[in-house]
Amino acid sequence: MTDLIIIGAGPGGYKAAVYAAKHGLKVVIFEDVNVGGTCLNVGCIPTKTYVHSTTFAEAVERQQQVVEALRGGVETLLSHPNITLVREKGVFIDAHTVSGYTAPNIIVATGSSPKMLPIAGADSPRVVDSTGLLGLKERPQKLCIIGAGVIGMEFASVFQRFGSEVTVIEYLKECLPMVDSDIAKRLRKLLEKRGITFRMKTAVQDLSEIDADIILMATGRKPNVSADFANAGFDFDERGGIAVNDDFETSVKGIYAIGDVNSRQMLAHAAEMQGIHVVNRILGIEDKIRFEVMPAAIFTEPEAACVGPTEDQLKEAGTAFECHKAFYRANGKALAMNETEGMVKLCCEPEEGKLLSAHVFGAHAADLVQEVTAYITLGATLRQLRETVHIHPTLSEVLIEVN
Amino acid sequence: MTDLIIIGAGPGGYKAAVYAAKHGLKVVIFEDVNVGGTCLNVGCIPTKTYVHSTTFAEAVERQQQVVEALRGGVETLLSHPNITLVREKGVFIDAHTVSGYTAPNIIVATGSSPKMLPIAGADSPRVVDSTGLLGLKERPQKLCIIGAGVIGMEFASVFQRFGSEVTVIEYLKECLPMVDSDIAKRLRKLLEKRGITFRMKTAVQDLSEIDADIILMATGRKPNVSADFANAGFDFDERGGIAVNDDFETSVKGIYAIGDVNSRQMLAHAAEMQGIHVVNRILGIEDKIRFEVMPAAIFTEPEAACVGPTEDQLKEAGTAFECHKAFYRANGKALAMNETEGMVKLCCEPEEGKLLSAHVFGAHAADLVQEVTAYITLGATLRQLRETVHIHPTLSEVLIEVN
Repeated sequence: MTDLIIIGAGPGGYKAAVYAAKHGLKVVIFEDVNVGGTCLNVGCIPTKTYVHSTTFAEAVERQQQVVEALRGGVETLLSHPNITLVREKGVFIDAHTVSGYTAPNIIVATGSSPKMLPIAGADSPRVVDSTGLLGLKERPQKLCIIGAGVIGMEFASVFQRFGSEVTVIEYLKECLPMVDSDIAKRLRKLLEKRGITFRMKTAVQDLSEIDADIILMATGRKPNVSADFANAGFDFDERGGIAVNDDFETSVKGIYAIGDVNSRQMLAHAAEMQGIHVVNRILGIEDKIRFEVMPAAIFTEPEAACVGPTEDQLKEAGTAFECHKAFYRANGKALAMNETEGMVKLCCEPEEGKLLSAHVFGAHAADLVQEVTAYITLGATLRQLRETVHIHPTLSEVLIEVN
Repeated sequence: MTDLIIIGAGPGGYKAAVYAAKHGLKVVIFEDVNVGGTCLNVGCIPTKTYVHSTTFAEAVERQQQVVEALRGGVETLLSHPNITLVREKGVFIDAHTVSGYTAPNIIVATGSSPKMLPIAGADSPRVVDSTGLLGLKERPQKLCIIGAGVIGMEFASVFQRFGSEVTVIEYLKECLPMVDSDIAKRLRKLLEKRGITFRMKTAVQDLSEIDADIILMATGRKPNVSADFANAGFDFDERGGIAVNDDFETSVKGIYAIGDVNSRQMLAHAAEMQGIHVVNRILGIEDKIRFEVMPAAIFTEPEAACVGPTEDQLKEAGTAFECHKAFYRANGKALAMNETEGMVKLCCEPEEGKLLSAHVFGAHAADLVQEVTAYITLGATLRQLRETVHIHPTLSEVLIEVN
């Protein structure tokens, strides 16, 4: 008797499997490539290994070790007696049958793939996606990156540090659309000063005209949908992802879709929390996960991070808000670390001061945003943040120094 | 008309002055050495500059720059029109008069000084306190440190990295008494593996017998009390500090003592928050600063940090609690950073799971503890922490992975 079938063992799928198994459910999970998914094998983890390596050669060497160690960890977790790991593609036969297994509940967690734009010259071997870039054994002399989103910016930062000549071409006027434009602009200017060339508001017509050894297409990702999904009968949304309700259930009762394949919040930690929430729902456990309080980090150097709406989004929505800023350059730890480039922006409701969002660039930005995520999730105010004791000397003191 | 006199422009005094001035109080602040106090000039800040320097030579060079930059910042803050900075020692004439100024409210913020034990051989020039160590122009070949508290451990870690042969002698059986003994022991063992010699449960009888170029006395600090305090008439406590109530008021109405001189919580950020609280009280502003939720960090490599009682303290107090642990070695960011040595311990109430304390060693320990400090301050539970979205891949995920 299988209680739950999961298709895909990326961060959404494998975490859901382990969580369900610990709660006593019998789980069958399908994975036809590597456990850990894009994130662990060819995404966040290898990229962060590059970020924390001194040279390209070290990055290439360490990448494999780190990925294998973590993959081993996931394999161990999936060896739970309540979990059957099937190392093949899970194929829908009907709404409750996947490759010969049936269960009352099915989670689709097939993830996403790089979206390659159909531009002239895109079929050249020098044009790669993020997986291709992570597979290079030699550092490109000249690297051109199409797209200034998270993936584009992280690789731009790290390859520039490795010594490549990096150009980023972006169609929009600013990088990192999820980050407050003020923060994004300052970060871009800083990376520009370090030697990265940015060509903003630029549409690429023909890749063959670009002077580069390697061209990275970092123009977004598309949900991995499969022909057999038709046998399940659920609907899709306008972005091509599986349409789900706020409990991540598809239009077919008992079938859920989590992570990139529902194209809601394309982040590994969003997939994980969506999976936990679905399993809670199956188990009848109520939780208070606030999916709208979704932090994200970009591991450029220095890093950037954000949680909640940008100032522009608040303005567009007509929300009344106050904006408070502080800079790293006055912070003792930042000076001691020689990391004085950085800024914090906190937005909160005008009177009571309930915190709405945080946007940060600078050292440990992800940690600072993670801290503010706690306050926002718990419905706390800027005053409560300020009245919480902050360790001296730490970068977190920048938060309480906002104007 | 002066509303408030502050004696001492360390972190407690100068922050209180600036905060009071912004709220419209006329402030006179006395400082006979450097603004910024021990912390900025010969304490936390120069030490952290050492921690973030690659070599001893770089540390010595950067120390002065960093300290001067921050001191300049404090001078600028103190140039507020409501603040008069008097560059001399503030001397009590009577309970409301200090060196010719009178005010209804007086804050004593004179800080503390290193406590030198009266051991044989302590008068040798090779025996220094932390200020003396930070003044060295040449790296000691052999450094012996008496005392495995915060100061001793931070200097042991950094000088070992600079290439000195470091021995730490400690009277107690474990280092860092404010940190959970489990965490402290693991950190000590890690530093031992890196080459630092620890001689625990050892009383030093005669310093002249120690084989070292420099001996650092890091055996605690004593409150800076001055003979003229007698003119004010307030009481002292058994530790030799100024006795204060929970609002940091002394036995004389209108006279307050904040920071190290009241010997309650000898931490720069404790002094700051005490000062804010006293000014709030003077202004009639109610605040909810929770002085019992007092985080602290130790910038060894890797760092350690804590907030709330240790497991041993909870046991002694007979408090019912649960203890949850997780290790850095399974964390993707830790692997990518090559910082897999680390551990988190969270203690919470058994049923509702209200968080009581966090003790961490490992990279970014201070940030992790700062995040948990938010949950503890707001009265949140472990479940609320787990249900808050944590960015992948970050070290903060170790918190939600506790068993």
